[in-house]
Amino acid sequence: MITIAVDAMGGDHAPRPEVEGAIAAAREYGVRILLAGLAPELKRELAKHSHRGLPIEIVPASEVITMRDSPSQAFRKKKDSSAHVAAKLVRGGQADALISAGNTGAVMAVARFGLGTLSSVDRPALAAPFPTSRGGTAVLLDVGANVDSKPAHLVQFAVMGEIYYRAIFGTRRPKVALLSIGEEEMKGNELTREVHSRLKQSSLNFVGNVEGRDIFDGSVDVIVCDGFIGNIALKISEGVAQHIVTLLKDALQSTLSSQVGYVLSRKAYENFRKKIDYSEYGGAPLLGVRGVTVIGHGSSNAHAIKNAVRVATELVRGGVNEKIEQELSKLPLAVGA
Amino acid sequence: MITIAVDAMGGDHAPRPEVEGAIAAAREYGVRILLAGLAPELKRELAKHSHRGLPIEIVPASEVITMRDSPSQAFRKKKDSSAHVAAKLVRGGQADALISAGNTGAVMAVARFGLGTLSSVDRPALAAPFPTSRGGTAVLLDVGANVDSKPAHLVQFAVMGEIYYRAIFGTRRPKVALLSIGEEEMKGNELTREVHSRLKQSSLNFVGNVEGRDIFDGSVDVIVCDGFIGNIALKISEGVAQHIVTLLKDALQSTLSSQVGYVLSRKAYENFRKKIDYSEYGGAPLLGVRGVTVIGHGSSNAHAIKNAVRVATELVRGGVNEKIEQELSKLPLAVGA
Repeated sequence: MITIAVDAMGGDHAPRPEVEGAIAAAREYGVRILLAGLAPELKRELAKHSHRGLPIEIVPASEVITMRDSPSQAFRKKKDSSAHVAAKLVRGGQADALISAGNTGAVMAVARFGLGTLSSVDRPALAAPFPTSRGGTAVLLDVGANVDSKPAHLVQFAVMGEIYYRAIFGTRRPKVALLSIGEEEMKGNELTREVHSRLKQSSLNFVGNVEGRDIFDGSVDVIVCDGFIGNIALKISEGVAQHIVTLLKDALQSTLSSQVGYVLSRKAYENFRKKIDYSEYGGAPLLGVRGVTVIGHGSSNAHAIKNAVRVATELVRGGVNEKIEQELSKLPLAVGA
Repeated sequence: MITIAVDAMGGDHAPRPEVEGAIAAAREYGVRILLAGLAPELKRELAKHSHRGLPIEIVPASEVITMRDSPSQAFRKKKDSSAHVAAKLVRGGQADALISAGNTGAVMAVARFGLGTLSSVDRPALAAPFPTSRGGTAVLLDVGANVDSKPAHLVQFAVMGEIYYRAIFGTRRPKVALLSIGEEEMKGNELTREVHSRLKQSSLNFVGNVEGRDIFDGSVDVIVCDGFIGNIALKISEGVAQHIVTLLKDALQSTLSSQVGYVLSRKAYENFRKKIDYSEYGGAPLLGVRGVTVIGHGSSNAHAIKNAVRVATELVRGGVNEKIEQELSKLPLAVGA
């Protein structure tokens, strides 16, 4: 039975959604759950739900990392945090994977340095899935702030992203693209020009450069970039979406007839919001660490937590880390610049 | 009287919106217009409108740069294009500014190499204005693909962006920010950390780093970044906006009641679309070239062209280029890394 360690104190509303989502996941996916966190709180929360017969256990942790903690400080000082304890369960072999909706930077540090990276991986990459206009999913990586990446890092990101995409979305030959400022090979900066030429020579289904405008149109599956760009891209997307929803809400509340219109079209809105709802994806896997790690949005609800457990389970079942080791060891340029 | 050279063959629908917008601008802003382009077409187009007494002249150009042309090829080979002719009018002193809705890369090349850069400027920067959630405007630069920028370039972008913002939006001390991946000074890549420290020591109203999510919230006025990032940021914003509108449209057309809702709220939608309509801004100035240059969206309508003329006129009246020379000559780090 696959065992998932859940950082039960990580999210903005912890431990409520963590516990509720974990119970739902244990029931639905037949996995065992280890809830890492403050034991009294977790007991109280568990008692609110029926979970008889489900394989759910509490593993005590005495500290909690908050969203305001500096990632490096939290990693170094809060050694008995729920995130650290969850990672230790993975390192010790008691759990197969770790999920957290906590402080992204801190969880990345805990996973990267607490679990270590796979032997053929220089830098783990955070891979963000999002819905495309065609109704599919695309994945952008790295969005986890690996700044000043070297060409070899981006090639590794491409390989890892492609393996993850196959495991979760079932596409046999995902289309891999490089985020740049023009489709032509020569468009871009020094980094992307070099990466373009290396990806062209790789065995991946590399379809060339894509521009920022095209990442949502569903024409490609895996989009690779430096973590500085990826982080900005992700946050701009969130910013624009929020911005548009704000403007639209203002506009729709401005007159009586549009208010009536709003009420009549509310269901359509709800469908729409569900479509762009991150919680359907559960979270973003941190690829390349020894032990599957999925990081959810801080505002994750129980549905998001349940889906994070599902994604972690599929990554374990799909043997994603073994495949990453295999594929990267074949690369002639695995390490260095 | 201020004279604006209009590349009348540049946009996707040229020369119709160019001619119509130029006439409206001449009437409204009291400026003189030189329409550069294929003379027979421009005569035919002008004849459709009443423009008696308005100072509008045609300056013949025998070639047209298309959106499909490679910018560098178009710049080198189509020497008698409408964009080249418009730039020559500025260089020769017959016009004070140039506007174009043509191939952005080609127009940038024509302006940069045809007009030259200001003596204290290493690289011109394209500055994109956009509406914020608070109803104001923020400006992002460089979005014009100055890749692999050095710290000194970004400092120059900051100075130029601030002067432009003051001239067009009337703010006395615009808030200048650096696009990065965290608010703390140490967050970012090598480039942004160095630029942060230089901007902190400058006389600008530098408010620190902003993340991608915050550029739309109206908390800052001028946001500085490398052109690779800026170009991706701009295109992602367009992509997300389009993506959301598509999803929303699908959602609203899915049921009868939401269709009724849509009709009732149509006016609100129109207000909303107007708010996010680029045409209100006219275009993005290319700051740092000898001669004011404003580049519009390829799909510019007459309203956008008229506004581009307005922006160009205000930049000339505001003495923006003189101010840029003045301010940059004071910088200790104007040239080099």
